[in-house]
Amino acid sequence: MEVATRSGGRPGDRYVRVLQPFAETFRRRAPGHLLVSEEVLRPRGPIGAATDLVRRIFVGQRLATEGEIRERIGPFKGLAVFASDNISSSAYASEEIMRVVVVAGAGALALTMPLTVAIVVVLGIVVTSYQQTIRAYPNGGGSYIVASDNLGKVPGLVAAAALLTDYVLTVAVSIAAGVAALTSVYPGIFEWRVAVGVGFVVLLWLGNIRGIRESANIFAIPTYVYLVAIYGLIGFGIWRVLTGTLPTYVAPAGWIPGHAVEALGLLLLFRAFAAGSVALTGTEAVSNGVPAFRPPESRNAGQVLILMGLFFGSIFLGISFLAAQLGVVPDPSEQETVISQIARTLVGAGTPFHLLIQLSTAFLLVLAANTAFADFPRLASILGKDRFMPRQFQFRGDRLAFTVGIMVLAVLSAVLIVAFGGSVTNLIPLYTVGVFVAFTLSQTGMVVHWWRARSTMHGWRWRAALNGAGAVATGIVAVIVGVAKFALGAWMVLLLIPLLIGLMWAIARHYHEVEGALALDWAGEALPERAPRVIVPVSRLDRAAFEALAYARSISADVTAVHVTDEREDLDEMRRRWEAWGGPVKLVILESPYRALLAPLMAYIEATETMDPSTPTTVVLPEFVPRHLWEYPLHNQTALRLKIRLFFRPNTVVIDVPYHLRNGEAGRH
Amino acid sequence: MEVATRSGGRPGDRYVRVLQPFAETFRRRAPGHLLVSEEVLRPRGPIGAATDLVRRIFVGQRLATEGEIRERIGPFKGLAVFASDNISSSAYASEEIMRVVVVAGAGALALTMPLTVAIVVVLGIVVTSYQQTIRAYPNGGGSYIVASDNLGKVPGLVAAAALLTDYVLTVAVSIAAGVAALTSVYPGIFEWRVAVGVGFVVLLWLGNIRGIRESANIFAIPTYVYLVAIYGLIGFGIWRVLTGTLPTYVAPAGWIPGHAVEALGLLLLFRAFAAGSVALTGTEAVSNGVPAFRPPESRNAGQVLILMGLFFGSIFLGISFLAAQLGVVPDPSEQETVISQIARTLVGAGTPFHLLIQLSTAFLLVLAANTAFADFPRLASILGKDRFMPRQFQFRGDRLAFTVGIMVLAVLSAVLIVAFGGSVTNLIPLYTVGVFVAFTLSQTGMVVHWWRARSTMHGWRWRAALNGAGAVATGIVAVIVGVAKFALGAWMVLLLIPLLIGLMWAIARHYHEVEGALALDWAGEALPERAPRVIVPVSRLDRAAFEALAYARSISADVTAVHVTDEREDLDEMRRRWEAWGGPVKLVILESPYRALLAPLMAYIEATETMDPSTPTTVVLPEFVPRHLWEYPLHNQTALRLKIRLFFRPNTVVIDVPYHLRNGEAGRH
Repeated sequence: MEVATRSGGRPGDRYVRVLQPFAETFRRRAPGHLLVSEEVLRPRGPIGAATDLVRRIFVGQRLATEGEIRERIGPFKGLAVFASDNISSSAYASEEIMRVVVVAGAGALALTMPLTVAIVVVLGIVVTSYQQTIRAYPNGGGSYIVASDNLGKVPGLVAAAALLTDYVLTVAVSIAAGVAALTSVYPGIFEWRVAVGVGFVVLLWLGNIRGIRESANIFAIPTYVYLVAIYGLIGFGIWRVLTGTLPTYVAPAGWIPGHAVEALGLLLLFRAFAAGSVALTGTEAVSNGVPAFRPPESRNAGQVLILMGLFFGSIFLGISFLAAQLGVVPDPSEQETVISQIARTLVGAGTPFHLLIQLSTAFLLVLAANTAFADFPRLASILGKDRFMPRQFQFRGDRLAFTVGIMVLAVLSAVLIVAFGGSVTNLIPLYTVGVFVAFTLSQTGMVVHWWRARSTMHGWRWRAALNGAGAVATGIVAVIVGVAKFALGAWMVLLLIPLLIGLMWAIARHYHEVEGALALDWAGEALPERAPRVIVPVSRLDRAAFEALAYARSISADVTAVHVTDEREDLDEMRRRWEAWGGPVKLVILESPYRALLAPLMAYIEATETMDPSTPTTVVLPEFVPRHLWEYPLHNQTALRLKIRLFFRPNTVVIDVPYHLRNGEAGRH
Repeated sequence: MEVATRSGGRPGDRYVRVLQPFAETFRRRAPGHLLVSEEVLRPRGPIGAATDLVRRIFVGQRLATEGEIRERIGPFKGLAVFASDNISSSAYASEEIMRVVVVAGAGALALTMPLTVAIVVVLGIVVTSYQQTIRAYPNGGGSYIVASDNLGKVPGLVAAAALLTDYVLTVAVSIAAGVAALTSVYPGIFEWRVAVGVGFVVLLWLGNIRGIRESANIFAIPTYVYLVAIYGLIGFGIWRVLTGTLPTYVAPAGWIPGHAVEALGLLLLFRAFAAGSVALTGTEAVSNGVPAFRPPESRNAGQVLILMGLFFGSIFLGISFLAAQLGVVPDPSEQETVISQIARTLVGAGTPFHLLIQLSTAFLLVLAANTAFADFPRLASILGKDRFMPRQFQFRGDRLAFTVGIMVLAVLSAVLIVAFGGSVTNLIPLYTVGVFVAFTLSQTGMVVHWWRARSTMHGWRWRAALNGAGAVATGIVAVIVGVAKFALGAWMVLLLIPLLIGLMWAIARHYHEVEGALALDWAGEALPERAPRVIVPVSRLDRAAFEALAYARSISADVTAVHVTDEREDLDEMRRRWEAWGGPVKLVILESPYRALLAPLMAYIEATETMDPSTPTTVVLPEFVPRHLWEYPLHNQTALRLKIRLFFRPNTVVIDVPYHLRNGEAGRH
């Protein structure tokens, strides 16, 4: 190491200078502090290069951690990214209300409009009270954070569990609805709807591993196309109503105008309201995503939230209004959506405008699922940081995306789509409960937030009152949804949430315990360096054993080779060759008449340790590494079993000394 | 280690004396040579004790390797053990001939007797020529050994592959036939025949793990009961024939006396001959098992072989004769065997004697499968010793049985029984080809054997002529069987044999290559002791990291801790705490802006190695061992990935320093 002698230098200098030919790879920042260039990630060999090419095509160039700020977005793209989930609900919200009330007869469809108005009122309350959350939590005010901050850990975890569940459902429901928008105009897809849905999940998975900026570019287009198209449709419809020129509506093929199968009771109304309140899902997204906005973050996010409420509310009202005017009935086979029926009645089936409406709806819905792909991994990473989820959820991939969370979400939502046959109506009962539980906790948390700040803040009373109104409104909806949908499937979610909380609690307790057990104040601690007693099990005198003995001798002077055998000839042969060798290592032969290999070795280790407990034991194992994987079962079976036995033994370190076999040569290393 | 100072002593003495308190466990035989008592195998803890109890009940007491000689057997038990396979063929050999000829009409059944005589003639030739093999190969003259010895490796492997295949079929066919003997008198079992067959395989598995002596005791009884019963039946039948008092035969319920579905051609005759030649399977067993006999081994084995031929030949002829006299037709549903039909006609259905015949036949057949359980593992272990099969086949369990071979045979034969629905007639076409291929190779090998010994031996000519006759006879049968049964299923075996040979060849080549690469003449070789450069990746300053650093320092003076991070705060904090500690280990911080952990570490290791290639690298990994298995995924993910990457890197040793967490305490080790 002659390079090290060029100068005396400060501590740490030497190790940097040693690396000078690697100046490209390691740039020196300070003594003992090297900055690693992207060079280290360069692929090696043809397989590595091919893998990297695929990665770059699908995932894109790597982004450095410091590059993050450039990924922020403004209100225009923000509306597309964060509001698409909520706005896209307009594609099915009216229809889900109609599907419930229609069981009380076609006449009950007249209730769709009043119920829509009621839900829009709740939306208004939620949007207003979330404005305050955005201001108060500029670093992201998801329900988990707000509830934990102000109400405590358990309410925080309830909100977190509720939201995680609902994010998975958001993906499943949105994609199922998007596929339904497609089957409305292309009925041939209907029998493949599960496969198409899973395909969209995979596309979203890939898209999200690319990171947020690309998503925004993809998103902006369909969101605004949808807005233009749907407003065009609604405006055209209203004009036809005002001019009294509405065309005649033809019900879908499967529709049988029967009488009511259920009386119009309070529970049915509640169920319809609960079905429609799916419209509010996605409102959380903006307050969650405040830090993703360009500065001033809070103002941009607040604007997006208000715009979202206005757009969504007006579309929701417009669709319900037109459906009522036309007398649209929901398609029992779920093949054609209500919006498609409105569009085909107003502009004609299969016309370009009808197709535009359907395709942009489908695109928007599928991409709206993307909001959950941003929210779920972000919440999971926050929970991971707080030790409520495994550490892996914090890891960010090449493009700064939380790859583990994205994968978990994709897998779970694909499973849901398959399990529920891709049906929106089957999935809806599980949805929404969690969202409203989270809303209620978040708004209640905000009330406590203002109460705590009362001494330093003017106007805390009206702020608290506003959030209090939000808490009451969303709390009532949560109860209505929970009760009305309980038997239909909400029970699954209400069972899952406590299970998730228990799991998160157990994970946190485990991490906490480990933390405590491992904590050590290093200041002043001296390293207890005790040279180990080394035992080398030797089955044959070959190169692998030789390497292992050489290594053992290089780390300790106290080395014993142990040979276990049940054959007398083998025993004599071993001793003879060992003496002929005359090396510096002592040999102990254990004659095992019952052919056991591991037990005598373990007993021997124990015996030596009992005689001299202060010296730690190290076992050095010669391990032969074959060239091909299929050759593995032909070797090392005993070494593997020994390793497993020793791994759980305290005070014992096991060292594999691998011996690599190379093509055509002796491969000595 | 003050005990070591008691005396000076010879080399090796010290390590024995260190173990004195363990005198019970390790008895000293010579310096550096300890005899391990059964003590080391004593179970520990309640689970270990329970497992051991189960093992002792099912497997029995352990046997020492030296105890083997006591397990030898004499001709009386030898007939039971080695001849039962062959003798039991009489339970189905006549029937299988009849099932073939009957397709040419009931009249063609008259051909059964002549075909039986022809097969018995071949049997006589084989028995005679195998007498010579037994004399020439007192250590076991299986076809593999005889063919390898005299014809070369490839013919030897052909014989081995053929035999291995046929042993598996022996188990499947014998057990299926045994179950058929039971269903003849207990038709209720018929629908469970697959499950009952698999159950018998499991019983044989357990029985064989207990070892050969117990098997012999189990065997002797049913073999001799069968002989007495079947000779009684045949004798009674012949007496009725001679006295002209044969009762009237009633065909089974499913029998429709139709006309011929196929003309009586040469191929049909060949097929019938091939089906009946199943009678010769099992002849190999005795010559394989010579060393299992009490001395004089060859004479005892030779006697057993002759007795076997006489017993089997006479029973086979007797059954075929009575079947022809009574006009028995095979049951199309396979529910009632031909022997059962003969018995019920002669002595009455359901009479005690009828039941005795059927039950002893069933027992004999199931236990005859046991011959294969002795032969298959023995042949596999010989192939293992010759490196044509994985080493594991050589391992002998607590009772000196080849446990791996027994397990493989049990699993394969159970799979066959399930796959062929437990039907003897479906399995038969696969059977027999292999046996006759092996016979032919073995006899041809014997001809070469005598030719080679011609200079030192009188009468080599007639010996060679005798074996030559055997080779020609069995060769003709092998061709007849292969052609006649090809389309019915023999093609599977004829395809499998070359595949097996290829596999064995590949295994042998691999072991041979490894042997060559690892071979080292130790005499005079000096151990190349080079103190390693140790790198300790440290993610946090905790107890686990501390232990790892302490261990690293104990094995080398050249230790570097490496910390990879992408966060500036973490970086500063780490450096601050490291300096505060002031320990004897230098720290290098790698700042990784792209968040990669492994790549910078690997690049760093490479860089240090390039600068100083003569020093081997050792990586010491702090590894946290949690208390419960479910906690594993919460830890060590990075360590695991690093280990996998480093395992395939030459010149690098990886050391896990496990840190065990104990209940309720800090668990420092």
